[in-house]
Parts: sequence; C-alpha cells; structure tokens
Amino acid sequence: MSDKPEVARATLADIQRPIEAELTGVRRELRRIVTGDFPIIAAASEHLRSMKGKLFRPTLVLLSRRAAGVPDQDAVTLAAVIELIHLATLVHDDSVDHSVLRRGLPTINALFSHQVAVIMGDYLYSRAIIELVNLNGLEPLRVLARVTNEMTVGEMRQLEAHDKLAYTEEQYDLLIRAKTASLLSAACEVGALGAAAPVRQALTQFGHELGMAFQITDDLLDYTEPEEVTGKPGGLDLKEHKVTLPLIAALGRMTASERALVARLMDTTDPADAMVAEVIRIVDACGGLEYARRRALEHAQRADAGLERLAPSAAREALRESIGYAVERRS
Amino acid sequence: MSDKPEVARATLADIQRPIEAELTGVRRELRRIVTGDFPIIAAASEHLRSMKGKLFRPTLVLLSRRAAGVPDQDAVTLAAVIELIHLATLVHDDSVDHSVLRRGLPTINALFSHQVAVIMGDYLYSRAIIELVNLNGLEPLRVLARVTNEMTVGEMRQLEAHDKLAYTEEQYDLLIRAKTASLLSAACEVGALGAAAPVRQALTQFGHELGMAFQITDDLLDYTEPEEVTGKPGGLDLKEHKVTLPLIAALGRMTASERALVARLMDTTDPADAMVAEVIRIVDACGGLEYARRRALEHAQRADAGLERLAPSAAREALRESIGYAVERRS
Repeated sequence: MSDKPEVARATLADIQRPIEAELTGVRRELRRIVTGDFPIIAAASEHLRSMKGKLFRPTLVLLSRRAAGVPDQDAVTLAAVIELIHLATLVHDDSVDHSVLRRGLPTINALFSHQVAVIMGDYLYSRAIIELVNLNGLEPLRVLARVTNEMTVGEMRQLEAHDKLAYTEEQYDLLIRAKTASLLSAACEVGALGAAAPVRQALTQFGHELGMAFQITDDLLDYTEPEEVTGKPGGLDLKEHKVTLPLIAALGRMTASERALVARLMDTTDPADAMVAEVIRIVDACGGLEYARRRALEHAQRADAGLERLAPSAAREALRESIGYAVERRS
Repeated sequence: MSDKPEVARATLADIQRPIEAELTGVRRELRRIVTGDFPIIAAASEHLRSMKGKLFRPTLVLLSRRAAGVPDQDAVTLAAVIELIHLATLVHDDSVDHSVLRRGLPTINALFSHQVAVIMGDYLYSRAIIELVNLNGLEPLRVLARVTNEMTVGEMRQLEAHDKLAYTEEQYDLLIRAKTASLLSAACEVGALGAAAPVRQALTQFGHELGMAFQITDDLLDYTEPEEVTGKPGGLDLKEHKVTLPLIAALGRMTASERALVARLMDTTDPADAMVAEVIRIVDACGGLEYARRRALEHAQRADAGLERLAPSAAREALRESIGYAVERRS
C-alpha cells in the first residue's frame, strides 16, 4: 500500500486468516484465565466474552511474532494477556466516562454497577499480571507495566482538558499516544521479544504509527459514521464534550460565530442532535475531517515504511493489511 | 505476650524503632516512585502523602526480613511497593464505597472526583508493578499479583452481601482474609523471601493471623470507639449497612423484636444516630463485642505461636509487639 494506502481494503478476517488456529487458542486462554472465582466475577466475565472483541491486539502480537521470526513459545498466552489488559482498561474507561454502551452491548458499569466495574477492572489486570509472572520472563512484564502506567497518564490527560477550545493538536497527540498507540505498540513489541534489536524496534515503531492512525480514524468515524456502523451514536464525542482532531483542526478556520456555537455546545449538558449535526457540518466545511484523514494517512504511511525494515513474509503482509483495516474500518 | 496478650501495649513507634532508618528510606522511595508525571497525578500523590500513613505494612516487610535473617537487599523498595499497593487499594475502595474521609482527611474521590480516584488507583498499582519488575526477581511479583487478585475477589464478596441478616461468620472470615489478612501476610512473606521454606511459611502464617486479628479489631473499634479515636464516625459500618463480626455473633442471641430493629436499620438509608446507638447497645448486650474480642485474641495467640518457630531476635520481638498493636490500637 506504499503508493496508495487509501485503497487497501482487507477485512479483519483476511488479516487474521494466517493465525486462525492461534486465535482460537487465545479465546481458550481468555476463558481459562478469567473463569470466575466468584459469582459476580463469573457473570461479568461472561458478559465481556459475549461482547466478542475483535482480538485486534492479540492479532498484532501473533503476526509480529511471526514477522520477527522468533519461536511461538508463549505467544498465545501473551496475546490473551494483552487482550485482558485492554479489557481491564475498557472496563475502567467506561466507568470513568459513565458510558452505557460498548460494541452495542451494555457496559459493565451499566449492567452491574459502577462498583463492580472498578473492581472487575482491577481483577482483570491482576489476573493478567499473574499470567505474565507464570510465563517466567521479566521482559513482557517490563513492557506491559510501563504501557499500563502510560495509559493511566493518558486517562488523566483526558480528564484535565478543561478549556475545550484551547485544546491543541500537540495535547491531542500526547493523549492518543498514551491512550491507544502505546498498547498497540506494546502488542507488536512483546510479539517481537527475542528478536534482534532492529527488528524489535521496527515492530515497536510500526505499532506506534498504526495506533496513531487507528485512534485518529476512530475519532473521525465518530463524526462521519452513523450508529449502525460504529455501534455507538454518531457525534457522541461532541455530545460528551470530547475534543478530537477534526474539531481541533477546524477551530482555527472558523468564523467568530461558528466558534461561538462550538463554545455553546461545550457549555450545554446533553446538547440536542441538531446542534451536534450543525457543529459536524461546520467542522467538515472548515476542512477538519479532511485534515484528520490526512493525518491518519501520514501515520499509515509511516507504519507501512516501518515494515520495509523486516524480512518479507506472509505475516509481514498481513501486518501491512492491518494498516488498511486501521484506517478503513468498520468490518 | 503468650499468656496474657491483652496487656501488650507497645505503640507503633516502639515497634518501628529498630527500623527507623529504613522507614525514612521507604518514605523517600514512595516520593521517588509516585512523583507526578502530570499535574493531577502530582496533586493526588501529594494529598496521599499528606495522609501520613502509619507504614504498618512496610514495617512488617522490614521486620520480617530481619527476623528471617536474610540480607536487606531491596527490602526498602519492596516495603515501599507494598505500601503503594495498599494505597492503590484504599483509593479504589473509597471510590467504590463513596467514602469521604480517610484518616481524618478527604478521600481522593471526595477531593478530586470519582474519575480521578479510579485512574489514580490504576496509576499507583502500575507504578508498583514497574518497581517490582526493576528489582529483577519474579518472586515478589508472584506473591503480590496473587494477593492483589485475592483482594479484588474480597471486594466483590463485600458487594455481594445482599441478605444482610443471613451473612455468616464463615463468609465474614473469607472476606477479611481476602481484604486485609492477605496483604499483611504477603508483606511478611516477601520480607522472608530468600529464607528457608519453614521460616518463610512461619512468617506468612504469622502475617495471616495478625491480619485477621487486625481486621476483627478494626471492625470492633467501629462499635466501641468515638470518632476522636478512629478518625471516622462511630457506628459507621452500621450506618453503611456493613455487617461485621460483632453483629453476626449477636444476631443469633437476639429476640425477635431486636432482630426486627436490625432489619429495619438495614432497610433505612442513612439511619439516625439513635437507631445506630440502640443497635450497638443490643449487639453489646447479646455478647457480640465480647465474642469478636475473643476471636481477635485467638488469632493474636496463633500469630504469637507462629513466631516461636523463628530464631530469637530483636526483630522477632518487635513483630510480637505488633500483635499487641493490632489488637489494642489506636496509637
């Protein structure tokens, strides 16, 4: 996809085909690891399983392992642990954000309670650490502890965004790097553990660029896609006063009255759909969507370039296709 | 204190005297580890430091290390990490319980927000894991990951106690074991890492019995001590409909009308002080306080007996005094 990344249209199923057997193993590992010590835990775990995550992060672990040419030992468990850490983060994020839906299903905080969500997140994360300890190596722990910590700092960044209209692209970049790119990068990095340093670095960097492209696309889809596609209401970020790249990019080109409308939306609890739709229209007219699309493609191209530093393999090509998936979702 | 444990009256300062220098090191380590990456994190860390924890768990690590006769290497950092895990747990517990005060100061959820509390707990816990990884041994991680997971299961147990009047002593024991005794036991166990198996087992068991005595005493103090002594309002557990050992023990000896009053209290949101005081009087009259006191002393005696399996040392005697502290607080 080096010359025209916008036409890569692999589905996630295509990307996952070479590692189908291992992904079945990941699902089995997830069941083994969180099988309920306790009724509420069992019920919450069951609910999380019913959400049927796409296992994108485990996919990155497994493909990176193959692309790096290191033995598969422990890769399935590592992949399951990364998904578990991801789930723990989602459960706490939903609780912090008071979100009620995730992948079209009720969140743990909505279905059980806020309390259960806090404890369940802690439970999943500590189970993940136990599994990592049992693998008997410190390197995956080193990578994942650092990244988990980085993600909490990212969450704090999100809370601290008080002056919505002054939020900068630089702050946004730091936020999505901490919140999303760090874990995708870590997935590729732990996949490459045991490989030579340049290979490990190439995959770590690839994961970072992929993650940036992935999150920018996610934020863009919130502006462009209807609920049927994303599983959450369109314009939700604006409704919740979350400032993402399309808005940041557009703000500098708005008229005073357009900016005033955005300010009014940010001051309105639960703004009306018409107001949200009007702000989306303005953001588009001011080139905010186009700018975000370009930024996503830049990261996609850098991700693609990173892969050139690896020896050719089917796994490398599947990773290349995952870039298309990241910037062209939904599937 | 083998024959008359009720007269041991060492203060925490007495117990900590042999390890004063190390505890200064623990405070320094805590500052180093949580020094703020970010404004809210720095502010929340500063607030947690201002609470001036008694460092009881670090004290157990350091004294166990000496009593086990193993080299002090990493003990100060390990002790700081245990305190950090304890803090992470408190921050999430307060958030789950909507508590507003802790050690007479506002909780993180009260002072900042519920969101900050959830993320701050995750931040502290992931910082603790990073430090453990940097120590380069898997054993402390193995112990502490297991215990952290056990504590989350304990928290779930607490949430699941729906039918308050049917809550059994066995359920209570499982709860306080998971919630409190597990971490005190882990503090002693990681202190003893590197020692011969019988020494490690003796200290692990000592920590467990100490923790059971400690929590039963805590629950008893809620019935017996005024706010000035404990830093939280007397009868708070009853106000919050928490069923602890004194009530469980008393329920079986209550008249039907007394039980009906307890049931009414459990059904009343924010029950009046007079109602709480009356239930406390009934619990006392039915021998609930006396029973809990006896249970605490039994655990104290077993803790004491456990220490007999260690070689005599000043540290062993300080651990013995910590039993007195656990069952005779406040200091």
